[in-house]
Amino acid sequence: MLLSQRSKYAVNPLEEDDLIAEDLSKKGKKIIKLNRGDPPAYFPTPKYIINAYIKALKEGKTGYGPARGIFELRDAVARRYKRKYGTDFDPGSVIVTQGVSESLYMLNSALLNPQDMAVIFRPYFSQYLPQIQLVGGKPLFIDYKEDERWSIDTDELKKQIGKLKGKKNIKYIMVTNPNNPTGTVLNKSVLEEVVDLANEHGLLIVSDEIYDEIVYNKMKFISMCKLAKGVPHIIFNGASKVFDATGFRTGFTIVPEGDKFSEKLKKKFIGYAMVRLSSNVPAQYAVAEGLNNVAEHNKAIKSMVKEIEKRVNFATNLLNENEYLSTVRPNGAFYIFSRIDLKSLKFKNDKKFVDSLLQEKYVQITRGSGFGKPSHIRIVSLADKKVLGEAINRINDFCRKSAK
Amino acid sequence: MLLSQRSKYAVNPLEEDDLIAEDLSKKGKKIIKLNRGDPPAYFPTPKYIINAYIKALKEGKTGYGPARGIFELRDAVARRYKRKYGTDFDPGSVIVTQGVSESLYMLNSALLNPQDMAVIFRPYFSQYLPQIQLVGGKPLFIDYKEDERWSIDTDELKKQIGKLKGKKNIKYIMVTNPNNPTGTVLNKSVLEEVVDLANEHGLLIVSDEIYDEIVYNKMKFISMCKLAKGVPHIIFNGASKVFDATGFRTGFTIVPEGDKFSEKLKKKFIGYAMVRLSSNVPAQYAVAEGLNNVAEHNKAIKSMVKEIEKRVNFATNLLNENEYLSTVRPNGAFYIFSRIDLKSLKFKNDKKFVDSLLQEKYVQITRGSGFGKPSHIRIVSLADKKVLGEAINRINDFCRKSAK
Repeated sequence: MLLSQRSKYAVNPLEEDDLIAEDLSKKGKKIIKLNRGDPPAYFPTPKYIINAYIKALKEGKTGYGPARGIFELRDAVARRYKRKYGTDFDPGSVIVTQGVSESLYMLNSALLNPQDMAVIFRPYFSQYLPQIQLVGGKPLFIDYKEDERWSIDTDELKKQIGKLKGKKNIKYIMVTNPNNPTGTVLNKSVLEEVVDLANEHGLLIVSDEIYDEIVYNKMKFISMCKLAKGVPHIIFNGASKVFDATGFRTGFTIVPEGDKFSEKLKKKFIGYAMVRLSSNVPAQYAVAEGLNNVAEHNKAIKSMVKEIEKRVNFATNLLNENEYLSTVRPNGAFYIFSRIDLKSLKFKNDKKFVDSLLQEKYVQITRGSGFGKPSHIRIVSLADKKVLGEAINRINDFCRKSAK
Repeated sequence: MLLSQRSKYAVNPLEEDDLIAEDLSKKGKKIIKLNRGDPPAYFPTPKYIINAYIKALKEGKTGYGPARGIFELRDAVARRYKRKYGTDFDPGSVIVTQGVSESLYMLNSALLNPQDMAVIFRPYFSQYLPQIQLVGGKPLFIDYKEDERWSIDTDELKKQIGKLKGKKNIKYIMVTNPNNPTGTVLNKSVLEEVVDLANEHGLLIVSDEIYDEIVYNKMKFISMCKLAKGVPHIIFNGASKVFDATGFRTGFTIVPEGDKFSEKLKKKFIGYAMVRLSSNVPAQYAVAEGLNNVAEHNKAIKSMVKEIEKRVNFATNLLNENEYLSTVRPNGAFYIFSRIDLKSLKFKNDKKFVDSLLQEKYVQITRGSGFGKPSHIRIVSLADKKVLGEAINRINDFCRKSAK
């Protein structure tokens, strides 16, 4: 029997090297893993959140919850957005998901007919692509401008959308801010251009803002919900990064607008939620407390972001000593995305580079082609300075020894 | 903008009355809810499982886990099956999912091309259908024989598969044992006939055994993994029912066989797991303990099943006093599925019956048409005798008053 044709898209380039790493570990090699954007592996999830989780368990909150999420969490999300971004949507606009992963599934399944397109800026968070392809959709790739700090190429965006107008059905523009894998925080004027363009062409704006509080180097993050008022848009967010709880799998999809299409889409998200019954319930109570306890959260996020800022800048400086890599300094999230000067090195491509680095230097990072951008590497900069320094020294050493 | 065509299938008839119930609650009416198969709402999740969950949280198990599930849980599943059913598959055959809901998504997306078919016995667990339709697949419905205690009509199965041979691509046969919504526990000879038929026609057997230890009235459950040795089959199970933890969203897909197709399918499930990164991690540790601590589990399941047996039999007896309903006594799970004598009542269909019952008697049950079987109702029999008795007396009263 054959698998379905679509199933070939069910892959994740970010995890492909895990088996090699496992093998090396079994042979007694100690791998430095800088490949997974997993804050709890470096910063313990805040105690007040853990305590709320334990409280929910002790109170017997272990049965199914409402499909779209418990009221307490949806309410906490609405309050957080009001507090931070001055929005006025109510808890009914929030659907709790099993991480942004599930938000992406619901979005693409609800919107894309086969051959329908979605605008994806490249390099992209690797999961965007398979989630589009698994429902038969097609990406419309627009490259970021690497030489302008990975900002959106709005001219190219305009051109491509114009070119396909009437020929292809483009459904949404995916904005990732702050960005994975580049660490870019987008500025207001670029975001406004995207909003205008979406509005002009009747495209939905999807804004993945899962790193919204992990911003540093004096940059300011602006949420799409402030700029896209009156234009259909949805926001993806969740507990994973800002609340330091990737393993809870608690995400939110927010549909803030009240126009006819937004209402229809919101109801459909709830329909998808009903099909899978419920997401993990005690975690939802924990995250509700995570959002509502502003004093505790501010303490935790401040201290984590301060540390991330130090680590990312330290790692970027060290990488900039490497003449074979070019690195744009990130201002958000915790990824560093460097271009490899492959012409001067003996590797055919970024995959060979990354695999050799793992096998020779026991440092696991991710190839840029996994994000749609060959000749680059992504380094997760969450480890402490000692580990990070050791790993990057090995990378620099590796490059020098691999020069042609 | 329009939603996708497939999105019309993202509905769940089991939850459609929740808004009416909510409205009534707001008006101060106390609703007796017998519509959700949610054991923890009636039997607290066992303490030893809660304690293991809390331990994992305190130990900081809050980051991403391996996409296919933590080793400890996959190992616990393999051990449980060896212990209970004499299997010899290893932890590599187990993929942890976000409940059987996600197992179903992965299965259908991995197997069904548009127009491919899957055999679904009717009445079916309501989620089977949208999960097939959302990927463009088609159900091949085979009705259970209600007059033979809802057993599988293997003659009809043979006939239908034969008829479509060469015309349609049938991919799998879904077996649900013990059954939701009928409570039927299938006997060995019927299961063997299904295995033979699947083998003959090269169809995958999918056995949803989420209620495998909730069996009573002296019936015995036989797992497909004992009967289908050498024939490609997969097993769906999880913590929700037997481990009394629906709100954890921890399911397992087991691919026990080692043939080429099974290996390919297993790898593909892992691919799907990688796309969504991880399922809730601390819950996995809790469920691993749930499975490994056999002494505690046996105590908990014995006491719960004994109570369920009493409640289901009590409710069935009371329903059998109602001349407008015909009820086959269930031997597994905790659902009662009764036929309504609509000719003698003033309701046009089961939906009208169920909606009126909710609005007039404040008892929420589910319409049979939501499981593909009109003129029936499903009653969840988990509530204690007092509540259950009150609810069924209201149902009986309601029928008598609604006679033509």
